[in-house]
Amino acid sequence: MKISDLGEFGLIKKIKEQSKGRSPSTLIGIGDDAAALSLSPSKKLLATTDMLLEGVHFDLSYTDLYSLGWKSAAVNLSDIAAMGGIPRFCLTALGIPSTISVEQIKEFYKGFNALCRKYNVDLVGGDTCRSEKGLVVSVTALGEVEKSKMLTRAGAQPGDLIFVTGTLGDSAAGLELLKAGYRGHGTGGRGKGSKSAIRNPQSEIARLITKHLQPVPRTEWGRKIALSGCATAMIDISDGLSSDLGHICEENRVGAEIRADQIPFSKDIHKAADHLKAIPLHYVLSGGEDYELLFTVPPSKLKKFLSLKISSTQIGTIIAGNKMFLRDDGKRVVLKPKGFNHFARAEYSL
Amino acid sequence: MKISDLGEFGLIKKIKEQSKGRSPSTLIGIGDDAAALSLSPSKKLLATTDMLLEGVHFDLSYTDLYSLGWKSAAVNLSDIAAMGGIPRFCLTALGIPSTISVEQIKEFYKGFNALCRKYNVDLVGGDTCRSEKGLVVSVTALGEVEKSKMLTRAGAQPGDLIFVTGTLGDSAAGLELLKAGYRGHGTGGRGKGSKSAIRNPQSEIARLITKHLQPVPRTEWGRKIALSGCATAMIDISDGLSSDLGHICEENRVGAEIRADQIPFSKDIHKAADHLKAIPLHYVLSGGEDYELLFTVPPSKLKKFLSLKISSTQIGTIIAGNKMFLRDDGKRVVLKPKGFNHFARAEYSL
Repeated sequence: MKISDLGEFGLIKKIKEQSKGRSPSTLIGIGDDAAALSLSPSKKLLATTDMLLEGVHFDLSYTDLYSLGWKSAAVNLSDIAAMGGIPRFCLTALGIPSTISVEQIKEFYKGFNALCRKYNVDLVGGDTCRSEKGLVVSVTALGEVEKSKMLTRAGAQPGDLIFVTGTLGDSAAGLELLKAGYRGHGTGGRGKGSKSAIRNPQSEIARLITKHLQPVPRTEWGRKIALSGCATAMIDISDGLSSDLGHICEENRVGAEIRADQIPFSKDIHKAADHLKAIPLHYVLSGGEDYELLFTVPPSKLKKFLSLKISSTQIGTIIAGNKMFLRDDGKRVVLKPKGFNHFARAEYSL
Repeated sequence: MKISDLGEFGLIKKIKEQSKGRSPSTLIGIGDDAAALSLSPSKKLLATTDMLLEGVHFDLSYTDLYSLGWKSAAVNLSDIAAMGGIPRFCLTALGIPSTISVEQIKEFYKGFNALCRKYNVDLVGGDTCRSEKGLVVSVTALGEVEKSKMLTRAGAQPGDLIFVTGTLGDSAAGLELLKAGYRGHGTGGRGKGSKSAIRNPQSEIARLITKHLQPVPRTEWGRKIALSGCATAMIDISDGLSSDLGHICEENRVGAEIRADQIPFSKDIHKAADHLKAIPLHYVLSGGEDYELLFTVPPSKLKKFLSLKISSTQIGTIIAGNKMFLRDDGKRVVLKPKGFNHFARAEYSL
C-alpha cells in the first residue's frame, strides 16, 4: 500500500496501533503534541539522539527495513548503556520517500519495537514527513541513572586498565561482506542487485552480517559495570576502537597503550578470513558500529571487578601523555584515531 | 570555512562552545554519549520531536540559517507549550551537505540558541553527520509539567468554547510572499535567485515574512492557560486551523462550529492584501505554521477564564456529532481538514 493512500495521520495511527506502550510510566504516548512520561524521582534523565541517512549510514539494497528499525533503536540505546543507564523511552522522526510502502514502514517499526521490547523501552512519540531525497531516520532515546552510578567519558587516569565487552571488528567485517554481495539469513534489502550476484552465506558470514545489520546494545552489561562502582570512564564503540578510545584520551588528557594480542576477536571473523579483504585488526581499529562498551578500571578495583565476572576483556592501559600506542608483535606504534568521522576529507572525496 | 576542514569532532566542539548551557540542571551537556539532566521531581517529563527537511519544510533560497535554527527550536517548543509545559532542554540532529559552511552552521546555532535562551532552554546534545541529499534537521525538546495541570488533545466536550491565541494566517501569507520573491528585513537565504527578482518589502510584508521564518512559540501563554485550570483540551496550530481543530474533534468524537467573523486577523495581513493571491481566511484554514494555541473552555469556567485576561479570541464552539462547520456571512458550510498533510495525494503529485 502506498503511504499516500493512508495519509500522514492514517500512518501515525498505524504506527500507534503497532507500538502500543506497555509501561505504566507512559502517561501520554504517540498521538498528542508531546509524550508525557514518569521517571524515577531519585534518578537523573539521560537523553541522546542519533540520525541515520540513506546513502550515508545505510544502503537499502542490502538493508531490510526490519533491520534498519532494529539498528536505529539499538544505536541510541547503546548511548544510554554507555552512561550506565536504564533505557526507558524512544521517539522516532522519519522522513519517508514515495518509494517506501506502508508495509516497509510497518517492517521498520516491527524491528524497532522488537529491540525496544527486549529492554522494556516504550516508543512514545515522533514525527513523520515526506522526504524527497531518501529515507531519513532520527531517533531519540531517553533513559535514567542514579547520579552516583553514572559513568561518563571523563574520569580515566594513567594506570587505569582498559576493558571492552564482547568481540570487536565483526560489524565492519559484516559490512564488507554485504558490500561484496554476501547476504545474511532472513535479511535483505530492496534487492536492487541481480539475484545471481547475491552469494550464499556460510553461517559465520551470516552472523557477521547480522552483527552489522542488527547490533545488540550492551544494556545489561553497561548497567552492571555502572552498578559495580569499579569503572572510572565509559564510552560505546560506535566509530571504531581507535576513534572512541581517542575520545576518552582527549577528554581526560591522557594516552593509552593497547595490546593487539589481547583484542577479543570472534571465531566468525577468523573463519570468514578468506572472504575478507583485510586482517581482523584493521576492522577493529578503523571500522565502527560494534556498539561494544569500552571502560576503564583502576588497579585498586581490579580484584573486585574481576570477582563480579562481568564478561569483558582487558586490552590495554591508560598512560600519561596524550598519545595512543599499539603494541603488536613486539613493536610499539603510534595509534591514530581512524574511525568514522562524518566530515573527514576522505569522506567528502567519495 | 568548509566543514571538512574541521571534521566532525571539531564541529561538535564549535557547537559546544557556542551553546554553553546555563542551567544547573544540565549535569552533562554536549559531548558525551548522552546528556544527563535533572528534572523537578514533582513534575512529569514532556518529550517531542520534529524533523525539518530541505526541499520539504524549508527552501534555502529564501531561508537564512539563523531563521532555520530559530524555527527548528520554536516548532518543538510549541509542542511543549501545547501541553501546558515548561520547556527545559533540546537536542539537535543535523545532516549537513558539503555545500553548507561552518559559518552557516554557526548561524543556525545562533538562531537556535537565541530562541532557546529566551525560554531558558539548554541545548544539551545531538548528532552531526554528513548528508548527501540536502540539509536535514531533527530536534527533540524536553520539558516538564505538573500532572494535574497538563493539557492534552483529549477533554473537549460539546458546549465548550473554542479559543485561539494571537492572530492566524500570517505565517502562510508570509510563505506566499517569500515564494513570490519578497524578502524580509535582515533575513535571506543563499540568494540563488537574481537580486533584481527580490522585491523590496513594506513593513507589513516584512512582519508577515518574519512570522513565517521566525515563529514565536506561545510558551508563556500555554503555561498560563494550563495553570488557570480553565481549559479542557489544547493543541498548537501547526498544520492549519481546519486540520488541528480536526484533531481535537476526532480525539474527542465531537464536532465544532467556527465563526469566520470571529477569527483574529492581523492588521498586516489586511494591509498586505494586494500582494497576496488569496483571502486571509484561506491562509487561516489551510495554511499552517502559525504555532498559535487552540484550546477549549467549558461555559462554567468562562467567567474565571476571562477574568485572567489571557490574550486570546473565542472563535467558535464544540458541538455534538463529528463534523466541523464554518459559519460565514450567514451561511453554514462543512469545514474539512485541509491543513498540511505530508502524505496527501496532492503532495505526492507535486
